Amino acid sequence: MPAKRYLMTPGPTPVPPQVLAAMAEPMIHHRAADFRKHYGECLARLKQVTCTESDVLLFTASGTGAFESAVVNLCAPGERVVAVTAGSFGDRWVKLAQAFGADVVQLKYAWGETPQAADLEAKLKEIGGAPVAFVVQSETSTGVVSDIEAFAKVAQAAGTTLVVDAVSSLAAVPLEMDAWGVDVVISGSQKALMTPPGLGLAAVSQRAFEHASRVKQPRFYWDWEKTRAAQAKVDAPFTPAVSLVIGMNVALGMILEEGLETAFDRHVRLGRATRAGIKAMGLTLFSPDEDRSAVVTAVNSPAGIDSGDLNKILKDKYGVTIAGGQGDLKGKIFRIGHIGWFDLFDITTTLTAIEIALAELGADIVRGTAVNAAVAAFQA
Amino acid sequence: MPAKRYLMTPGPTPVPPQVLAAMAEPMIHHRAADFRKHYGECLARLKQVTCTESDVLLFTASGTGAFESAVVNLCAPGERVVAVTAGSFGDRWVKLAQAFGADVVQLKYAWGETPQAADLEAKLKEIGGAPVAFVVQSETSTGVVSDIEAFAKVAQAAGTTLVVDAVSSLAAVPLEMDAWGVDVVISGSQKALMTPPGLGLAAVSQRAFEHASRVKQPRFYWDWEKTRAAQAKVDAPFTPAVSLVIGMNVALGMILEEGLETAFDRHVRLGRATRAGIKAMGLTLFSPDEDRSAVVTAVNSPAGIDSGDLNKILKDKYGVTIAGGQGDLKGKIFRIGHIGWFDLFDITTTLTAIEIALAELGADIVRGTAVNAAVAAFQA
Repeated sequence: MPAKRYLMTPGPTPVPPQVLAAMAEPMIHHRAADFRKHYGECLARLKQVTCTESDVLLFTASGTGAFESAVVNLCAPGERVVAVTAGSFGDRWVKLAQAFGADVVQLKYAWGETPQAADLEAKLKEIGGAPVAFVVQSETSTGVVSDIEAFAKVAQAAGTTLVVDAVSSLAAVPLEMDAWGVDVVISGSQKALMTPPGLGLAAVSQRAFEHASRVKQPRFYWDWEKTRAAQAKVDAPFTPAVSLVIGMNVALGMILEEGLETAFDRHVRLGRATRAGIKAMGLTLFSPDEDRSAVVTAVNSPAGIDSGDLNKILKDKYGVTIAGGQGDLKGKIFRIGHIGWFDLFDITTTLTAIEIALAELGADIVRGTAVNAAVAAFQA
Repeated sequence: MPAKRYLMTPGPTPVPPQVLAAMAEPMIHHRAADFRKHYGECLARLKQVTCTESDVLLFTASGTGAFESAVVNLCAPGERVVAVTAGSFGDRWVKLAQAFGADVVQLKYAWGETPQAADLEAKLKEIGGAPVAFVVQSETSTGVVSDIEAFAKVAQAAGTTLVVDAVSSLAAVPLEMDAWGVDVVISGSQKALMTPPGLGLAAVSQRAFEHASRVKQPRFYWDWEKTRAAQAKVDAPFTPAVSLVIGMNVALGMILEEGLETAFDRHVRLGRATRAGIKAMGLTLFSPDEDRSAVVTAVNSPAGIDSGDLNKILKDKYGVTIAGGQGDLKGKIFRIGHIGWFDLFDITTTLTAIEIALAELGADIVRGTAVNAAVAAFQA
């Protein structure tokens, strides 16, 4: 295994040294003033990043835990929920809601297709409405990013509470919770928020809190009201993940110092650079070739090459970790994450390594052009 | 605020520098071989610390989350559960089980009393048995440690699945899960396991897995089978808290290198030293004056002194954080944790600071004897 490592997966993502350093400070008590300072600042910054005046509830959990909080606060057993699915994470939310007795109607796309708000509008009309709908902003398994503003418009018009999975997209691509009228935004610490995994978050609108107050579904750890009440006193109902909160506060400070608009623009350029480099090698994209697809780039593995073999060489020989395909796409695609703590040189490094490794595997690729193409696309 | 800080609370507890350093290493991917090495080792070490051959399931959550996993896997709505309560955490498990529809029968003691297995035996007889019972090993709010071996005997004879809250006690006082026939042990990373908060664990016996397979209660994130199946492949069903797992693996290695028996003996001595010093000052104990009470020492605040004032001076002027009383005990007791990364000098430091601060508050205490008494008790 090479000494230098490069983490290019769509989560967990690289954590800035400043964040790691903050987490390595001596432990402090979660109810003491010194922790409350970090915690209060972190909660306020989360609102800024989510573009909301509402509470962003923090759970010691992975993103799936935070999503479960949306299900148990919003979905009564037997009630209908529409789940927009076009990949691995959409499928997970279907199973999660079904586990809690929801009557899940799927608006199902093939993996790699981009869900359309007009289809949700038609589906809601067809089934006579639904109290809740789920949609994934960035489907990490395929690289597709959906137009959440359009989905929010449809959901609002239908009186449907919209839950957006923004686990891999928050702070990478725009999501204006209040301006767009999104009811619930779910995310996690380990993607564009540049923090190790372990914190899940649920930004909850006033309308969604009211919805939750009417839903009879057992809940304790995930109870939104309990968490809201504690956070109002800069407290947590259960011991929070102190070091992760302190780390995330530093990461959020870095994101806000860069500025959300600048960060979004950077992600667009990172996506463009990746796609340009991939195409210059003569490879074809699995994820859409469009600016919105700025989180993960999914690439079809060249003919005769199992993407698992590519990933193995990259990891074992060159220290570069990228992701493979999930489900039916296993072996057929590879995925490059460019979420969070990434700049142009991370992309050129990844492209260079992929070019070397594919050549070793005997793939029929164009060599020597990917980096230049990436630089040009980034700077355009 | 003084530059040097001393964390003497019963959780979160001080984290060894080696653990902090391990957590500050660059992020790695949770499905890559380098993480699996840490993860597999961590899961194996957890079994050793819990003295079990069964699976120890790891959740990205606080201890309360892990306890919720026991409730949703074992308690069917409407079914009876006996909760042994003698403090704040006992009370929390009552509320948690009630939230999921359990018919909770309380075996209730005053805060500070030590629950007795014979009382559980009588209660189970009185109500005609119960499928599940909860008991707290170390009640952090009072410093009382219960005799779990005796409780397990009673539960086994009654055919009751016993869930033990060992959040603050695991690796501090003996808990031989398999030898004693305990069905479920719940714990968390941030106490004697010397790791920041964020990992909850549930050690589950084969009998408890079978019990869970019969219980109809919606579950997804907390589902034991899902987690067991993933862990069997050295995987996790949802992105685990990578850095905390890596840190806890280092901490567990330190605990096992010291040896469990040596660690237990150290905790007994730390408890003795603390009690001896406290009594030498002329103060009285709230927690029992016995060797088993080796996790937290609770002390009655001297006449006329609000323990909140003591804690404030200790924190703000001397950098020493201890805990106050919870619930009705607020202001009336203070609590010194000695769980995990503690040695004799942590105790003498804390006693010295308490002596100085109480003198400043005008308390009628004996000065100049606490440290000697503590040293003598530790070395006896």
